[in-house]
Amino acid sequence: MSEEQKNHTNKTYTAALIIIGNEILTGRTQDINTPWLAQKLLESGIRLEEVRIIADTEKSIIHTVNELRQQVDYVITTGGIGPTHDDITSACVAKALDKKLVMNEEAEKILLDYYGEENFTDARKKMALLPQGAKLIPNPVSAAPGFNLENVFVLAGVPKIMRAMYDHVIEMIDVGAPVLSNTISCGLPESVLAPDLGELQQTCPDIEIGSYPHYRGGVLGLSIVARGTDEALLMDITQKIIEIVRKHGEEPRALNIRDEEILSQERL
Amino acid sequence: MSEEQKNHTNKTYTAALIIIGNEILTGRTQDINTPWLAQKLLESGIRLEEVRIIADTEKSIIHTVNELRQQVDYVITTGGIGPTHDDITSACVAKALDKKLVMNEEAEKILLDYYGEENFTDARKKMALLPQGAKLIPNPVSAAPGFNLENVFVLAGVPKIMRAMYDHVIEMIDVGAPVLSNTISCGLPESVLAPDLGELQQTCPDIEIGSYPHYRGGVLGLSIVARGTDEALLMDITQKIIEIVRKHGEEPRALNIRDEEILSQERL
Repeated sequence: MSEEQKNHTNKTYTAALIIIGNEILTGRTQDINTPWLAQKLLESGIRLEEVRIIADTEKSIIHTVNELRQQVDYVITTGGIGPTHDDITSACVAKALDKKLVMNEEAEKILLDYYGEENFTDARKKMALLPQGAKLIPNPVSAAPGFNLENVFVLAGVPKIMRAMYDHVIEMIDVGAPVLSNTISCGLPESVLAPDLGELQQTCPDIEIGSYPHYRGGVLGLSIVARGTDEALLMDITQKIIEIVRKHGEEPRALNIRDEEILSQERL
Repeated sequence: MSEEQKNHTNKTYTAALIIIGNEILTGRTQDINTPWLAQKLLESGIRLEEVRIIADTEKSIIHTVNELRQQVDYVITTGGIGPTHDDITSACVAKALDKKLVMNEEAEKILLDYYGEENFTDARKKMALLPQGAKLIPNPVSAAPGFNLENVFVLAGVPKIMRAMYDHVIEMIDVGAPVLSNTISCGLPESVLAPDLGELQQTCPDIEIGSYPHYRGGVLGLSIVARGTDEALLMDITQKIIEIVRKHGEEPRALNIRDEEILSQERL
């Protein structure tokens, strides 16, 4: 990804994610798109404000797209752009944005090249029906493209495809300063640290301080996370959190500075 | 869990889940409460209609609670009931339901017994501040209770505690007929089966048919899931799906009838 091409600003942008699909709502499939996208967005200075997991019904998709696109800079949807009867995302986004659903010639050509004329069935042609004016988001994995219209970005639900599409999305949009984070872990109960952490938070609204209890190997532990775009300020607050933990008689057990692998470590 | 005590009906109930906490929205923590709750609810005839993952801000919590409690039978929240400055769920639910936030005597006694008088600090007392009229949901893991008010059930975010609380919730509410599901797996492209599956779905609206492509070990596969409360009808539709797969030249590779371990298998 070439950093030079991007429109970088110091603003922190906002995004919302709409995960469309009954397979998540029935617990059949674990949603692994949210944590991946959340981290990627933060790296580009885009804060995920809300995630909604909704059923693949016209009413819920249209309502959710229209509510969220007013509230945030970027709306990303995943799922429901395949060839089957329950893939209705493109048609619903067209309705939400008051556009006609039309055969997109560029998408049609991509799919025709991929499948060949005799295998380009009606079900596959359906994947080229997109809202008028849609800008394609390439799919290097299985051809059928996603698309962008206004501030809505429509991606596939299969994680491998979604991730490949996201690499294109991030080239299409304005991004901000990366949100950095530090994590301090200890074995103290949350309630012991609560007053000092609350006080520290009040002195510095630009760094968000959160504390997260967890069970790991049957033992209750606590991770304290500080997050913000100003690295010097972040390091200062991190130092103060370490001092608070020490004041209560414990040496912090782990300290991750701008930890990239935090997801696997911190899984509950 | 004693089945006899429950109020069973043939209705399918609806639920919405509100996951409160920046740790999910930053990708720091993977949300494992949704798939667990989704499956548990379906077993009790309760369909999860929507999940919203929101920030721990007063505005978003109050707005989301008030929107969803009008739409579904049961609203379940997880997270934000601990002792720290960012634990504001109880106060926000009180505001959303227009109740006073008061010291709940029963909760206060539970916490006093658990911590002992000299360790019952102000931060811990905060966990007994609940909306007036709240009915406690016991927490056998770490004492601090959840609560129920109207159709809103407020649970902890730590999965181990949330699950223990849910066992009490399910005893407190009306439940319906279990939603059953069968999964048929094959290696055919979704688009090959799309027309036949779409036609089958139209003949039988009471069974929901979904198809989910996935990559496993680098190979694209497809799971077709049929779901409904009528077991005979479900088995009939399942048989028809198997016939459709065979018609297109493949023997289904796996057939899970009311599969309890499907989550781990189907993870992408």
